Amino acid sequence: MMNGTLNTYLKHRSIRSYKDKMIKKNDLELVIKSAQAAPSSINGQQVSIIAITDKEKKATITELCGNQLWIDEAPVFLLFVADFYRAKLAADKNNVPFGITDGLEASLVASVDVGLSMGNAIGTAESLGYGTVCIGGARSNPTKMVELLNLPEYVYPICGLCIGYPKDESTLKPRLPKEAVYHEETYNKELRPLIDQYDKTMSAYMKERTNGENDRNWSEGISNFYKTNYSPHTRNEMKKQGFKNE
Amino acid sequence: MMNGTLNTYLKHRSIRSYKDKMIKKNDLELVIKSAQAAPSSINGQQVSIIAITDKEKKATITELCGNQLWIDEAPVFLLFVADFYRAKLAADKNNVPFGITDGLEASLVASVDVGLSMGNAIGTAESLGYGTVCIGGARSNPTKMVELLNLPEYVYPICGLCIGYPKDESTLKPRLPKEAVYHEETYNKELRPLIDQYDKTMSAYMKERTNGENDRNWSEGISNFYKTNYSPHTRNEMKKQGFKNE
Repeated sequence: MMNGTLNTYLKHRSIRSYKDKMIKKNDLELVIKSAQAAPSSINGQQVSIIAITDKEKKATITELCGNQLWIDEAPVFLLFVADFYRAKLAADKNNVPFGITDGLEASLVASVDVGLSMGNAIGTAESLGYGTVCIGGARSNPTKMVELLNLPEYVYPICGLCIGYPKDESTLKPRLPKEAVYHEETYNKELRPLIDQYDKTMSAYMKERTNGENDRNWSEGISNFYKTNYSPHTRNEMKKQGFKNE
Repeated sequence: MMNGTLNTYLKHRSIRSYKDKMIKKNDLELVIKSAQAAPSSINGQQVSIIAITDKEKKATITELCGNQLWIDEAPVFLLFVADFYRAKLAADKNNVPFGITDGLEASLVASVDVGLSMGNAIGTAESLGYGTVCIGGARSNPTKMVELLNLPEYVYPICGLCIGYPKDESTLKPRLPKEAVYHEETYNKELRPLIDQYDKTMSAYMKERTNGENDRNWSEGISNFYKTNYSPHTRNEMKKQGFKNE
């Protein structure tokens, strides 16, 4: 059975080129409303969203995220942050100690919550005809991002989201074969043939998309990206904001 | 403008009581397909899903997740895991070093990916008439979960999801006021009045739901939960699976 929700999910693709046109105010309201409606751990709602539409500020954010020019182009940039600041206020209000941000658990909880909330924002925006792209580069310069947006203690930038009217249609990117990510009852470790198969699919996809100029396959791409911990500052930066990750 | 996607999101509630009836095979296919269609960091697809329907195994998982009996009741339990095992295979295939799991960044990336993927699974399941509930308790006994499901290195349990036919309708839980989680251009730290307001809302909600027996408000609930790092084992357990979180 196909329905609107499923249709939205299955045609998802990232959009990195936007028209110079603000999204409708009421649509942004719905995006935020749906982001808030997502489930969260213990109903703690460990996510906040900062919307940036100011062009100068957005230009700064483009730089802070590693010069991803589609942030400049998109009329709205939403920053999703891990947020235990409200939980700290709650602890103060009730005069009890506050220990959750000592542990790595807090970072996992908030990151999952960000994914759930941002996922709803994406689905809603796309169902209303907009394009989106997630910006993991929002974690590249956390100190400057914290200063720019006045983020308090126990708040940390996790992921950005561009929203706008798509300028170009982009193509649907093939995913790993289902058998490589879905397991029944127990994890099947024999994945190499499936990775080989996907490498062929992605190589052909890239070749077609770049008119023959680039046929890099999946495992080449991600193994190059994951050679090292490309973000060695994260632990210290999170500590500055009160996340000890012990 | 209201549509199917938005409607699914806005009526979301967690379901903790299920009929003894398997979900349709084709519907489970769609749930998994939509979970795979979610965006992921660098198209790395850092998530895997293990479906457990075996009753004995599900009973064990119920215990491992802190005796959450709705896992027993639900016909399907999906475990969403952070997965860099495929990335390790990709590195081996291309004969390059593999360093990403040294850093905390890997845990953030995979947790956000889990949220995005699980969010699609939730939306699809709910749009097809099923109920769901997320199980953060899937992180409570990682070593035993790893053994039970045969999880390889660079794979770690992040969150579970029950799916089934709802036995009881549950009520829609009020969220924090929009102004407490949504900020324009800059973070507004003056949140205490909004927390006070939400505390009143949640106290009334709890009172009605429990026929007057419990009127605990939001800040009491979460400040009690977050007094300490309730999961001090996480860092060591992740290390055992290859996530150093440096």
